[in-house]
Amino acid sequence: MDPDAANEVVVNDLQATLAELIDLSLLGKQAHWNVVGPNFRSIHLQLDEIVDTARLSSDRVAERIATIGAAPEGRSGSVAASSQLPEFPAGQVHVEETVKRIGATIDTMAERMRARILRVGDSDPVSQDALIEASDALEKQAWMLRAQLER
Amino acid sequence: MDPDAANEVVVNDLQATLAELIDLSLLGKQAHWNVVGPNFRSIHLQLDEIVDTARLSSDRVAERIATIGAAPEGRSGSVAASSQLPEFPAGQVHVEETVKRIGATIDTMAERMRARILRVGDSDPVSQDALIEASDALEKQAWMLRAQLER
Amino acid sequence: MDPDAANEVVVNDLQATLAELIDLSLLGKQAHWNVVGPNFRSIHLQLDEIVDTARLSSDRVAERIATIGAAPEGRSGSVAASSQLPEFPAGQVHVEETVKRIGATIDTMAERMRARILRVGDSDPVSQDALIEASDALEKQAWMLRAQLER
Amino acid sequence: MDPDAANEVVVNDLQATLAELIDLSLLGKQAHWNVVGPNFRSIHLQLDEIVDTARLSSDRVAERIATIGAAPEGRSGSVAASSQLPEFPAGQVHVEETVKRIGATIDTMAERMRARILRVGDSDPVSQDALIEASDALEKQAWMLRAQLER
Amino acid sequence: MDPDAANEVVVNDLQATLAELIDLSLLGKQAHWNVVGPNFRSIHLQLDEIVDTARLSSDRVAERIATIGAAPEGRSGSVAASSQLPEFPAGQVHVEETVKRIGATIDTMAERMRARILRVGDSDPVSQDALIEASDALEKQAWMLRAQLER
Amino acid sequence: MDPDAANEVVVNDLQATLAELIDLSLLGKQAHWNVVGPNFRSIHLQLDEIVDTARLSSDRVAERIATIGAAPEGRSGSVAASSQLPEFPAGQVHVEETVKRIGATIDTMAERMRARILRVGDSDPVSQDALIEASDALEKQAWMLRAQLER
Amino acid sequence: MDPDAANEVVVNDLQATLAELIDLSLLGKQAHWNVVGPNFRSIHLQLDEIVDTARLSSDRVAERIATIGAAPEGRSGSVAASSQLPEFPAGQVHVEETVKRIGATIDTMAERMRARILRVGDSDPVSQDALIEASDALEKQAWMLRAQLER
Amino acid sequence: MDPDAANEVVVNDLQATLAELIDLSLLGKQAHWNVVGPNFRSIHLQLDEIVDTARLSSDRVAERIATIGAAPEGRSGSVAASSQLPEFPAGQVHVEETVKRIGATIDTMAERMRARILRVGDSDPVSQDALIEASDALEKQAWMLRAQLER
Amino acid sequence: MDPDAANEVVVNDLQATLAELIDLSLLGKQAHWNVVGPNFRSIHLQLDEIVDTARLSSDRVAERIATIGAAPEGRSGSVAASSQLPEFPAGQVHVEETVKRIGATIDTMAERMRARILRVGDSDPVSQDALIEASDALEKQAWMLRAQLER
Amino acid sequence: MDPDAANEVVVNDLQATLAELIDLSLLGKQAHWNVVGPNFRSIHLQLDEIVDTARLSSDRVAERIATIGAAPEGRSGSVAASSQLPEFPAGQVHVEETVKRIGATIDTMAERMRARILRVGDSDPVSQDALIEASDALEKQAWMLRAQLER
Amino acid sequence: MDPDAANEVVVNDLQATLAELIDLSLLGKQAHWNVVGPNFRSIHLQLDEIVDTARLSSDRVAERIATIGAAPEGRSGSVAASSQLPEFPAGQVHVEETVKRIGATIDTMAERMRARILRVGDSDPVSQDALIEASDALEKQAWMLRAQLER
Amino acid sequence: MDPDAANEVVVNDLQATLAELIDLSLLGKQAHWNVVGPNFRSIHLQLDEIVDTARLSSDRVAERIATIGAAPEGRSGSVAASSQLPEFPAGQVHVEETVKRIGATIDTMAERMRARILRVGDSDPVSQDALIEASDALEKQAWMLRAQLER
Repeated sequence: MDPDAANEVVVNDLQATLAELIDLSLLGKQAHWNVVGPNFRSIHLQLDEIVDTARLSSDRVAERIATIGAAPEGRSGSVAASSQLPEFPAGQVHVEETVKRIGATIDTMAERMRARILRVGDSDPVSQDALIEASDALEKQAWMLRAQLER
Repeated sequence: MDPDAANEVVVNDLQATLAELIDLSLLGKQAHWNVVGPNFRSIHLQLDEIVDTARLSSDRVAERIATIGAAPEGRSGSVAASSQLPEFPAGQVHVEETVKRIGATIDTMAERMRARILRVGDSDPVSQDALIEASDALEKQAWMLRAQLER
Repeated sequence: MDPDAANEVVVNDLQATLAELIDLSLLGKQAHWNVVGPNFRSIHLQLDEIVDTARLSSDRVAERIATIGAAPEGRSGSVAASSQLPEFPAGQVHVEETVKRIGATIDTMAERMRARILRVGDSDPVSQDALIEASDALEKQAWMLRAQLER
Repeated sequence: MDPDAANEVVVNDLQATLAELIDLSLLGKQAHWNVVGPNFRSIHLQLDEIVDTARLSSDRVAERIATIGAAPEGRSGSVAASSQLPEFPAGQVHVEETVKRIGATIDTMAERMRARILRVGDSDPVSQDALIEASDALEKQAWMLRAQLER
Repeated sequence: MDPDAANEVVVNDLQATLAELIDLSLLGKQAHWNVVGPNFRSIHLQLDEIVDTARLSSDRVAERIATIGAAPEGRSGSVAASSQLPEFPAGQVHVEETVKRIGATIDTMAERMRARILRVGDSDPVSQDALIEASDALEKQAWMLRAQLER
Repeated sequence: MDPDAANEVVVNDLQATLAELIDLSLLGKQAHWNVVGPNFRSIHLQLDEIVDTARLSSDRVAERIATIGAAPEGRSGSVAASSQLPEFPAGQVHVEETVKRIGATIDTMAERMRARILRVGDSDPVSQDALIEASDALEKQAWMLRAQLER
Repeated sequence: MDPDAANEVVVNDLQATLAELIDLSLLGKQAHWNVVGPNFRSIHLQLDEIVDTARLSSDRVAERIATIGAAPEGRSGSVAASSQLPEFPAGQVHVEETVKRIGATIDTMAERMRARILRVGDSDPVSQDALIEASDALEKQAWMLRAQLER
Repeated sequence: MDPDAANEVVVNDLQATLAELIDLSLLGKQAHWNVVGPNFRSIHLQLDEIVDTARLSSDRVAERIATIGAAPEGRSGSVAASSQLPEFPAGQVHVEETVKRIGATIDTMAERMRARILRVGDSDPVSQDALIEASDALEKQAWMLRAQLER
Repeated sequence: MDPDAANEVVVNDLQATLAELIDLSLLGKQAHWNVVGPNFRSIHLQLDEIVDTARLSSDRVAERIATIGAAPEGRSGSVAASSQLPEFPAGQVHVEETVKRIGATIDTMAERMRARILRVGDSDPVSQDALIEASDALEKQAWMLRAQLER
Repeated sequence: MDPDAANEVVVNDLQATLAELIDLSLLGKQAHWNVVGPNFRSIHLQLDEIVDTARLSSDRVAERIATIGAAPEGRSGSVAASSQLPEFPAGQVHVEETVKRIGATIDTMAERMRARILRVGDSDPVSQDALIEASDALEKQAWMLRAQLER
Repeated sequence: MDPDAANEVVVNDLQATLAELIDLSLLGKQAHWNVVGPNFRSIHLQLDEIVDTARLSSDRVAERIATIGAAPEGRSGSVAASSQLPEFPAGQVHVEETVKRIGATIDTMAERMRARILRVGDSDPVSQDALIEASDALEKQAWMLRAQLER
Repeated sequence: MDPDAANEVVVNDLQATLAELIDLSLLGKQAHWNVVGPNFRSIHLQLDEIVDTARLSSDRVAERIATIGAAPEGRSGSVAASSQLPEFPAGQVHVEETVKRIGATIDTMAERMRARILRVGDSDPVSQDALIEASDALEKQAWMLRAQLER
């Protein structure tokens, strides 16, 4: 692949990741405020950790986009239009429903990350490292949500 | 005003504020990543303070909405649809343009806050206090941006 | 209202709040030590936050009473005699029962605070601010307890 | 002594200590808010240290009661009824009077602690350690109060 | 009141407060360095807390003046000319005299604050909040000084 | 008892405690990683506190063994061979099962500690103090686990 | 390789690493307590850093195993049976002997890590990153031990 | 020089320095609040560092005056009358003008410090050390202001 | 490649990186001290961040060289002789010139890093990770400098 | 034993301990400053830990003496006259000699502590706890010194 | 003066200072434990600051002696024999008596320091700086004691 | 001496010191990475303290040069050419050899500092203070190295 094409691949994968991470940070807060049910406080706190994780990763990914010469895009309109995460309902959501939906959302993101990590690694190991770090944190959160659904 | 109507007024004003604060937190990051020009680092850091301010206030406002019995709404789609802040362009934006636009955005927000603070104070002084705190922080940031444009 | 009468109103409302906050700080610890059930650790920790909140607010309210020239009263006998919070049973109490009772107790307090905040604001905005801050923290705790009871 | 009887002795001594420590924490705050006189600030601060000491010890003692299978009792009504510390007057109290009364109160408590420490040590050295720690902190505070009365 | 007149009222009250707070911060240091007598260290430390309080409040008030579009004035000449706090003597001042004079100075300030808080609240609740916070801290310091003079 | 025999008793009791504490620290991590079920996060965090407690106590106990002239033994093989704590299953374990098993394990340890504390106190009060501290922390954790099983 | 087989390879390599890291954390403590000789304090402290390193890495590796859907195994019996690190003698060990043996143990581990890092990287770059981080910390400790043996 | 005359020289030089440092701390705040222009935030922050520097030095100098038996003078009126620093205009001041004026003010102070340091060193090396430390901090700030004016 | 040759490649690339990082840390300080112009303070602070970044990376790279069995070389003479970064002028350098030159220097380094990262990754993923981390930090600093030059 | 006689025993044992702990804190510093030899830095740091340990224990023991109604004695003359620790030479002392002498001194102290702990425990368990804590810390330091002498 | 003679002067002055500083640190603690009277807590805390000051200065002075090639002497016997500070009585000492005596002791020390600072400055400005720092801290403490005696 | 000549002397002495301090910071790191032998970890850590000391001093000295109007020079080429410290060998260096060489290097520097301190003090006491502080820290490190070579 020629350098410019390679760079375009990297920018596209970073930008798609950025939109999803920002969207997750909003979804996480939405769930943090609206969750109800017997396990409330514990999941309320865990959702804030997911938000922190998403914010830290989004900052690293966005600054990597700028670093390799493109313009990161994170305005609410474009995030809403492009991130394509599963729907999350308005209003109060019960603990179990919240855990299932946020868990599934992060699983979706992690699935997409795997392909991006491989694709980006061919031409830009530094950008790949940013994606690995983001994916590592997300997958761990997904495990901790999944573990709560085991019977 | 009967209590339910009064409560509806309060919820509406808090929810409108919440949408704008979340939108500002995304706009602030967008600007933080895309600003260019001689004053880069200084404005880059100030934009992060604005983001912190907007995040802290949005959390207090959203939890106040939940506290008075409604469901805060902060998903990317509804934020994009409802916040109605002035447009901010995609891609790199020069320092001066950034300062002007973010300053004007916060001025718009502060203007709307004034009416809400008065309206909410009639029936719910605790919610009013949350709006006063948010407005105080925003207006101070607006001053610090405005001061940079004086010749 | 003449100043002395106004001051008496303020002192009465602050003193009634003080007795309830001290009583809540003891009730919170009682519940913290005696709660049992599947959600134990999470509610055990939340009850300690309620105690911290009640202690901080009681200190601010008591020192405000002294500041405006009266003598705050917080001895165990007078707290027990005057605070009039709902009963809380001796011995171990199950998580759900604990959440319901402490939640209802704080709701009772918040209800009384609303009238006091309005009454005090007429003559002493500084004392009003102390009551608003106390009420804000209490109502937020009440929401977090209530959310755990939703099915 | 059979184990159950021994355990009952331990619980009784811990519970009596708990009631007194909670009562002291309220008395200490009462005095902290109402002390007046030339030495005000210094004694005002020392009383807060006594409150901190009493709170820390009461928490350790109460959790030890729960740990050995009983239910700690710390509600305002039962504390007022059972702690039997010397009276403390309402309203402002002069520095010297405050020092004398709080010092005498702690001396009374320390006196009772000595018998409990010996009694509890026979069957439960872990509970004894909690009482020793509480007594050590109290006696030190009593010395620092007593030293202020020397002429 | 029309907005410009209202704004002028607010600026005037904030500016008068600013001058007094700066003057108090200098007076507090003057007293901190020159106090002598048996209670020296305790009052020496308390005066530094008053200075910290005055500095924090003056910064918030001054930045609020700038935020609402006026220019805060805090140069030594204009502070000396405008603050109109009671005289404080040169040279060493005995503890009791110091406590009386600084206490009276803060009482004077608190008295003036009450009128300003009410006046400003009509048109600018955010500025009112800054004045309430400043007054709360000052009045508490005045109580702690007053308490030292009780016999 | 002659000094050497007394010392041997002390070393034996400390060494048996050490092996169990190390084994508990591994069991606690095993459970921390493999627990699943609705209460996941809360018990996941509590298990880490148990691990911290066990590690701190094992370090104090081991260094006490060295201090009185013997060689502490804490290699995996000898821990596995000597600690004789109840079995804990491989693989994922449900929250309730985890709480029951870890709680029972600590109860077993606490039971053994009681005899050791009495035995060691006869000849070495310093070593006894190390065992009391370890037992205090363990018993408190056991209570917090037990409390979660109450219906 | 098909995904399930690939995953099995990754789990096997992570699990083998986990057992060795736990074993090293026990060996490090064993040596920390039993080392004697002229360099005692310096090596005593370094061994604690090795233990910290091993504990941090084992936690990350174990949680990665859980994250990719397997059950981490870290009980004392299976660690003793599976880790296959070189023997370490019971009782006091001289500084030089300690340095040689712990250094050789870490060299053995680092050697095994190299193959695992390459194997795991083919299918799971996130797990590979956890192994790289663990290996980096271990190899650095090995260098610092080795450096002490140079004449 | 006889000791009393020497002491008078030292007190005079310390007192003159004190007045200037207090005046600079007010000027620095005045400029901090009123600066406008493209470099706003950077100079706004630097001016606060100058204020901190001036406050720390003024405290050390004033306490040195008290230590050698004189009474430090720092009331607003006498500071305004005696410090004789260059005028600073009321109202908003542009960044470049601010940098020039504050830089020149500090240069003026540093110039006066040089003579004082030499004079005081003859009789009181401890006071000299306080002046050296103050001058060192001031001169460094002056350099950082001057550097901004280079073209 | 045979292991020894592979190792030689790795050592060469790490050593070349080390020399450049040390040289950059000196250049960064040189620029930090000698920069002049309107943006002085902001670039002065950013240059110190670059120095911190270069120092942290150089330490990790040097210790990796020692870890894989070679001797890191960082004396001033050999750094000067081997690092081959672009020239930087003596004496004061204007802000814009400084930004351009340091930015270009880091771009040169980043360019060389890309080839090394790929080369080293073939045989030593742990060393590769050290180079990726160093390059990530450098490239981000280069972006922040470049952004200041945009018009 | 009658209470007064018992108290005299306790005071005597605490006072003898106090004198030795103060003497050890001076000896530790003497050795810290004068030690020379290949292990310098490591023993230099360990001696400072011994000094810290001795200072903390001496403060707790002295305040316990005051607490039980006697006057602690810690002036240099009486410490020198009464502590009766083994001689320590003036001037530089080699590492090995230092370790031997300080180790022997602490062994002497620990030996005397054992009898005191038993004697004091009969009548005053709180004072006994202070002696146990002091002895625990001393004996641990003695072990760490002794370990350095093993061949 | 020839270098060796000059060095001997410096060592003598540093050593005399060291003995006095160590003696003061013991005297300060003696007074801290035995002070009684209405101002107890305030002077109790100030005496601990004097002890901290004396300990910090003694460490710097002692290490300076070692640095210039001599052996610092700080054992209890030689301190008692050489420091020649004014007597301090055994047993409880009233606040006013304590303030007078410790104040006079520090005045005595400060007087001696003045001559040493001048003498040492001729040949060793670095040692002089250590004496200036020690004297500065001592004189400030003396002022704060003296101020308490003013009527 | 006329002011300009005096200033030139000061700049020359500061600049010579700066070059040596930078060179020492590189030498210290070189030794930190390459030292081998039985005392490895202890000297490895001490060398990092020397580097920290040299970096802090070099920053103060360089900023002092800028403050008095000259341009500090610290690029690798000029440092290598001008600092003229004793040679330090490439590659691994044994502990004892390292201690001897770094000790001798610092002795060389300290020797040169003495003349500079005296020369600079005549015209610029503030610069002299920077040299005294640097020399104090260096000489102390030299003592701690020298002490390790005593037999």
